[in-house]
Parts: sequence; structure tokens; C-alpha cells
Amino acid sequence: MDIAAVNALPYEDFVNIFGNVVEKCPVITAAVWTGRPFASLSALEAAINEFIDALPESGKEGILRCHPDLAGRDLHSGTLTQESREEQARAGMDALNTEEASRMARLNDEYKKRFGFPFVVCARMSDKANILRQLSQRCQNERAVERARGIDEVKKICRLRLQGLVLTDAPNKL
Amino acid sequence: MDIAAVNALPYEDFVNIFGNVVEKCPVITAAVWTGRPFASLSALEAAINEFIDALPESGKEGILRCHPDLAGRDLHSGTLTQESREEQARAGMDALNTEEASRMARLNDEYKKRFGFPFVVCARMSDKANILRQLSQRCQNERAVERARGIDEVKKICRLRLQGLVLTDAPNKL
Repeated sequence: MDIAAVNALPYEDFVNIFGNVVEKCPVITAAVWTGRPFASLSALEAAINEFIDALPESGKEGILRCHPDLAGRDLHSGTLTQESREEQARAGMDALNTEEASRMARLNDEYKKRFGFPFVVCARMSDKANILRQLSQRCQNERAVERARGIDEVKKICRLRLQGLVLTDAPNKL
Repeated sequence: MDIAAVNALPYEDFVNIFGNVVEKCPVITAAVWTGRPFASLSALEAAINEFIDALPESGKEGILRCHPDLAGRDLHSGTLTQESREEQARAGMDALNTEEASRMARLNDEYKKRFGFPFVVCARMSDKANILRQLSQRCQNERAVERARGIDEVKKICRLRLQGLVLTDAPNKL
């Protein structure tokens, strides 16, 4: 699908197709439809990011709280969204050994207890060793730092999900 | 569940239980968790309403676009949320005769074409004759009026869904 096809979509199809580019937040997708037509895929991505940035801090925390734990309950019970399942599998989250799984569970709980939202990372841009290291380090951060960092990761995840759905913008002609 | 029990919930349980008090907008529920503890059910409701009111107009339209059509595709295909299914059934939306169904479909389409979001009404506070009359009248409104009116209906739906989940506040002692 190219951006012209995206711009031609009625809101219902737009929300059906793009409703999970921010995990479990179809309202964000549904909101940016107001700003169509989009000049490019980048413009659509920018509209989503601007909407997120304009939310109060509680709203940003709300976005983080709509994300599942990495290698958590939703992975084991099969209730992840399709996008999350594929991303977590690609990062090896479904193939942790017992020691890794137990360390991940402990650190996830520590993180959530400290911050009141889950650890969010763009799993597709990482692997299990790196994710465990980041999780351990990020548990030490301040809450405001982690809120901002988590939202940065949400935007990376969103970009990759968008790129999986829409043809990337043609490079500028020379 | 009373408000003390609500305040004791970790965010995951809070979002699981209250995530659909605004249809398909768990991010709103997840956001207001930041403001706990709530002094009363009314305080929780007020926090949700304030979050909605602070959204840009596009965000309010986004909320409306997360709602299904009344007596629409999701009702017929069985893909309504449980809350919507019960509310639409109570208002007789699953028992329209052919003429009513065809009028409803035509007016829903006219409304969506005019405004770019669906007709939202608190079905539990109405019946099919009244809903058809309102839909026909509201098609004539200005877009900004309908956006505000739709959001008022979202808040009524939210209040009833909350009251179905939490014990209503005890009356003030004399």
C-alpha cells in the first residue's frame, strides 16, 4: 500500500489496518485520521508522534501501561497481539532458558513496582542478552527519564509497524 | 467492588477491569490510574472526563471513531465488545425489522459521510424509535456540535459502565 492508498481509506479501514501501530491504542490512530491526507509515510508517523507528545504525562504513562511485559503472562498464555508476538519471538523472548526467564520476570516486576508502568523496548531492534542488560540498567533510572525513554521506544516500535504496512517513501529525485 | 478495592488494584488489573469503560480506549483508563487513589466512584469518573476534555479535538474524534455503528457490521458479525453488545441489545438494535434496519443503515452512512465519525448515543438510556429519531435529527447539526454531543454520550455510556463495575458512592450522612 502506498500513501495515496492510505489517504483514500475511510476511517474504519484506516483504524482496522493501523489501529495497533501503537500497542492497544487505536484511539491514537483514529485521532490522526483527522489530519489526512498525509504527504508521505513520514508525515503519518510524525502526526502520530505529535499526538503522543501533546498528551499529558499521565497519557504517556497510559500508553506504556497498554504494553505487555516482555516474556510475560501474555506471551505464555497466547494473548499477545499478533504484532507483539512476532516482535517478542524475533528477539528470542519465547526461547529463554529457565535462568533467563526467571531473571526477566524478577526484573520486570522490579521495574513495574518502581515506575508503575512496564518496561517497553523495541524488541525487533535488540536481542535477549541486550534486552536483559537494558532492563537491569533502566531499573536504576528516575521515573521521568524512564517515561520519556519508554515513549521513545513506543515510537520506534510504531515506525517499524508502519513500515510493515506502507511502502516507505521514495527517495528524493536527484 | 468498592472504591477502596479499586484503589488497591495494580495497573494491570485496573486496565483489565476498566479498560473498556470508554469503548476500545484502554489508554484512557490506563492514564487515569496515575491519579489514584480516588476518593469515590465519582472522582474516578471525573478523572476520566477530565482526561477526555483535555484531548485535542482530533483526540475526541478519535474516541468517537473507536465506537461501532449502532445495528451495524459489528453487531451482525458478532464482533462487538461485550459491553456494546449488551447495550445495543437492550435498546432493541438486534431486533429491528427490515424497514428500520435499512433506515438505520442509510442514516448511519449519511452521518459518517457528513462528520467523519460515527453516531454515538447512550443506547441504554433510549429505545429504537428514539434512537432513529435522534440519528435523523443529529445528521442536520454542525460538525463541532456533533463532536461535543458525541463526547457527552461517551461520558454517559462510561458512567453506566462504571456503575456496573463499582458500588455507587454511599449517600452523604445526614
